[in-house]
Amino acid sequence: MSANPEELLQNSIQLDKEYTKPISGSRKIHIEGSRSDIRVPMREITLSATVTRNGSEPNDPITVYDTSGPYTDPQVSVDLCQGMPDLRTGWIEERQDTAVLDGPSSEYGRSRLNDAALESMRFAHIRKPRRARAGANVTQMHYARKGIITPEMEFIAIRENQCLEAIQDAVLSQQHPGHSFGAALPDRMTPEFVRDEVARGRAVIPANINHPELEPMIIGRNFLVKINGNLGNSAVTSSIKEEVEKMMWGIRWGADTIMDLSTGKNIHETREWILRNAPVPIGTVPIYQALEKVDGKAEELTWDIMRDTLIEQAEQGVDYFTIHAGVRLSYVPMTANRLTGIVSRGGSIMAKWCLSHHRESFLYTHFEDICEIMKVYDVSFSLGDGLRPGCLADANDAAQFAELETLGELTQIAWKHDVQTIIEGPGHVPMHMIKENMEKQLKDCDEAPFYTLGPLTTDIAPGYDHITSAIGAAMIGWYGTAMLCYVTPKEHLGLPNKQDVKDGIMAYKVAAHAADLAKGHPGAQLRDNALSKARFEFRWQDQFNLSLDPDTARAFHDETLPRDSSKVAHFCSMCGPHFCSMKITQDVRDYARAKGVSDEQKALDQGMAEKADEFRQAGGDIYLKR
Amino acid sequence: MSANPEELLQNSIQLDKEYTKPISGSRKIHIEGSRSDIRVPMREITLSATVTRNGSEPNDPITVYDTSGPYTDPQVSVDLCQGMPDLRTGWIEERQDTAVLDGPSSEYGRSRLNDAALESMRFAHIRKPRRARAGANVTQMHYARKGIITPEMEFIAIRENQCLEAIQDAVLSQQHPGHSFGAALPDRMTPEFVRDEVARGRAVIPANINHPELEPMIIGRNFLVKINGNLGNSAVTSSIKEEVEKMMWGIRWGADTIMDLSTGKNIHETREWILRNAPVPIGTVPIYQALEKVDGKAEELTWDIMRDTLIEQAEQGVDYFTIHAGVRLSYVPMTANRLTGIVSRGGSIMAKWCLSHHRESFLYTHFEDICEIMKVYDVSFSLGDGLRPGCLADANDAAQFAELETLGELTQIAWKHDVQTIIEGPGHVPMHMIKENMEKQLKDCDEAPFYTLGPLTTDIAPGYDHITSAIGAAMIGWYGTAMLCYVTPKEHLGLPNKQDVKDGIMAYKVAAHAADLAKGHPGAQLRDNALSKARFEFRWQDQFNLSLDPDTARAFHDETLPRDSSKVAHFCSMCGPHFCSMKITQDVRDYARAKGVSDEQKALDQGMAEKADEFRQAGGDIYLKR
Repeated sequence: MSANPEELLQNSIQLDKEYTKPISGSRKIHIEGSRSDIRVPMREITLSATVTRNGSEPNDPITVYDTSGPYTDPQVSVDLCQGMPDLRTGWIEERQDTAVLDGPSSEYGRSRLNDAALESMRFAHIRKPRRARAGANVTQMHYARKGIITPEMEFIAIRENQCLEAIQDAVLSQQHPGHSFGAALPDRMTPEFVRDEVARGRAVIPANINHPELEPMIIGRNFLVKINGNLGNSAVTSSIKEEVEKMMWGIRWGADTIMDLSTGKNIHETREWILRNAPVPIGTVPIYQALEKVDGKAEELTWDIMRDTLIEQAEQGVDYFTIHAGVRLSYVPMTANRLTGIVSRGGSIMAKWCLSHHRESFLYTHFEDICEIMKVYDVSFSLGDGLRPGCLADANDAAQFAELETLGELTQIAWKHDVQTIIEGPGHVPMHMIKENMEKQLKDCDEAPFYTLGPLTTDIAPGYDHITSAIGAAMIGWYGTAMLCYVTPKEHLGLPNKQDVKDGIMAYKVAAHAADLAKGHPGAQLRDNALSKARFEFRWQDQFNLSLDPDTARAFHDETLPRDSSKVAHFCSMCGPHFCSMKITQDVRDYARAKGVSDEQKALDQGMAEKADEFRQAGGDIYLKR
Repeated sequence: MSANPEELLQNSIQLDKEYTKPISGSRKIHIEGSRSDIRVPMREITLSATVTRNGSEPNDPITVYDTSGPYTDPQVSVDLCQGMPDLRTGWIEERQDTAVLDGPSSEYGRSRLNDAALESMRFAHIRKPRRARAGANVTQMHYARKGIITPEMEFIAIRENQCLEAIQDAVLSQQHPGHSFGAALPDRMTPEFVRDEVARGRAVIPANINHPELEPMIIGRNFLVKINGNLGNSAVTSSIKEEVEKMMWGIRWGADTIMDLSTGKNIHETREWILRNAPVPIGTVPIYQALEKVDGKAEELTWDIMRDTLIEQAEQGVDYFTIHAGVRLSYVPMTANRLTGIVSRGGSIMAKWCLSHHRESFLYTHFEDICEIMKVYDVSFSLGDGLRPGCLADANDAAQFAELETLGELTQIAWKHDVQTIIEGPGHVPMHMIKENMEKQLKDCDEAPFYTLGPLTTDIAPGYDHITSAIGAAMIGWYGTAMLCYVTPKEHLGLPNKQDVKDGIMAYKVAAHAADLAKGHPGAQLRDNALSKARFEFRWQDQFNLSLDPDTARAFHDETLPRDSSKVAHFCSMCGPHFCSMKITQDVRDYARAKGVSDEQKALDQGMAEKADEFRQAGGDIYLKR
């Protein structure tokens, strides 16, 4: 655990190159809202022109959602020791319902702050914590239900839109004339729609008032499907610096939120470094740290320790807490004859506590007390699925579904306090049993957003569980899951390194986007269409730059045809110059045009007429009769 | 193009190590059928014992389907210059309906054989080709319809069973007592069932009489989902030796069939090397080679050239031909206004030919002539989808579906000749449009097996298209597709290297297995359950050995915890020694047992009773009411 501010500072120049250079072929832009301090970051991908026999036709840029934060903004000088820019304090203060405290109100937070031995590893510019004034409720849900559109909501409305009209106008006008994209695109997202979805509980905005660095985002099934990336040290491995780097790496490639699942030493300090440098919501599982405080002995956990931990983390700025309050005493024996018992760490801790004391879970009995904490910092619940199946054989069993019903009951309690709530889901589930999970969750939890770990659709591929689970994730995302928790290739085998984090993120960006497409999310297919157009027109650089990972696409291409000349060649290595099907198709199109069948409707009519002829003659067709 | 027999021979020792060592933790076994020359290869994975407080309980071995052929059999001395052992000539000869020819009956085949300049690269032990006697039909479908169960069918019945009863007995008895695997497992596969499915056209056995090295396998939706791996040189890159190596590499990791899509030089000689060393069916797209014969000028193709090519390849032993006979003249204009036109190479060649001559496709008009060739060698049709969509925007359009209807018409013609037939499918299709493909194919093609390329569920992830397509492949496999054509990470970018081949195979083994699970294929979940049991019991080596890729699973684990001691440790690097949820679950189970709730039903009753109590009290529950 060797990281300290100086070390991080020394490395920040190195970080610049790898973590802060703009993603290939694109630049950071900001869309301004109704006021000058609402500036929504996006990434604009510049495209080259299409060369035709009549000269060149420009292709307008494509604008895409950008999770990478100020790191990829050349206007921002990144210094990890200073943290990210403060985006939200003005918005929070103008609501006049919070107060800045003298210092941490958690016992543990104070002791860490006053421990001189921690000086060398402590983030140097810790703000004083903020809390709701007495009697106030500062959740986005509370504002939403009062009819207030917050700057966070407006920010999100712009962000979810992806500047849709502009993209739409641009792409539709430059695409092949007459081509149909299918259903007409609906209206753009509005701040009022965001407010309404949050008020209804169908979406959450994880945005702790102590995390002003946050660029607001939303999780709900009527918005883009989001993905979460996990990181965290354990007692065995990993340092603070590595964890901050994994966070930066994860958001660079598209993680919408990051969960810090640290279970090793210096959890408090690691989290501070991550939060101060995170433009995305950070989630945690507070029971992990609580357990560290009792030396790993689950039976020694108490509500007081848990309560202090929740306050400690809330005052640091954690945006959502996984709380395994659905692991009730009476459900634990239901898992005793499972093939793989309880695989959730939080779930197994609570199960052990319940059995040790033969008492109901203190998270369940103190649930309203937890709500009281959540609402004065605006921490969102992520109600943990402590009894999720750890293998196919245990999927959709009595223990899993009993817990889910309890999570539904707890959702109603959280909503009574205007506390934002999402529900965690499995796990390991074969494809034909996935839909039942989604349907039961929507029903039991009254449409609170679902947040699933995959699910993995087979158990036999350790080393490839980013793929076994991307299959399940794409499907459950289509069915209505709002956020997908990534799985890396190292799942079940070890802690992910940087490459594993990227591989996991990529598999999940694919799954989330496939789900957005299947759900018909407005504008989701524009980037696919732009990339396919570039592919068809042999605009190789545009194809790379429009892809989720331009670096890998370009590197793969260059393995076979590295010369710059082939990037403009009308063929690729799969087929060679004579054999390119796209080249032949262009010949076909030219031929069709020359033959006078270039007009779409005319061509179709002609084709259909011939087909109709054929069908009419089928009565005497030698093929079918003899 | 430097490969020659000597060079291959020199490398065969090196090949031994990488391609021929048994897959970790397993050994080759053979199950004997009703006669001693039916010996079905399988792979037996040995498991270690479970350690309990009462001593150790043995875990019986798991037997799995094995595509790797004699390469992984220590009893077989592999020599690529000699080719694989002859498994089927006895079976073919005893049917007494074939004759050995004096030499190739194709003009091209004769010219290559007599070209002294090719001596250095020619496979040295070419058999004389075999053909049906005059008037005979030697297809497996023909035998099946006459009620004959061939040795190939019996071989397949045993193979598909995966020795189910034995596995079932073994695994069920060693699993945790009282655990339920869900639905009862059905009876084992029978040779009669295989015969019946082939006779009905719902399954095909690609098995050219000139490919006696083949270990028979079946493609049909009531059998295990199969995967195909592509290889092939192009004008730009790749040698014979590389292609043979890719074939060996592909089947080692699970490819059920291999398509040789070569378009470069020496296609004929490359194919001979591959066939003589292939224990799996080999498919080709004959029009690729036909086009090479006319220097890439599609308009110069003729039926005579195509006919000679079909006979040339059939006499070498190709097991199935992709024939793009559904690209009819009248459908071509339907593609002119697509976003990406025609992306199938075969489709674009035929489209160009049709338009150039303004005549109906010669493959369509000569389809019965092709059937006459297919049935005298037992080559199966893979009716190509030349008009498949090359991007999401073109999915399920008029051109694609018009062609599919024609493929259905051609299926009936093929079946009239007792020629086995599968139907190729897309391509690029968003998730919500996949099912329509399957349903239309089943209807239009009268349940002939479907064989799809993915489909890719988004266009924006070049470099990750093994994942974008594994999602679609798993889904369409579940819906009923019989074989999935793999896609590698290099798709759209370049030719796959060895690692890409393995990555593609792995993604597709995952997809196919996920589909088998979702379809409830008998016994499919036994391996998942065995692996999950090993995982839960910290039998690390068993977990690795039961996985699809033991080498990668072990290597990933060892990155974090390389010491041998941790392979038996009751924790892993994700959580560390104190924090292992599986350890805690075992504590829970011990605790539950000590408290007298170890009996499953009792535990469930107790849990349910408490839950029922809770529900009864819910009327006054403070949580829900206030």
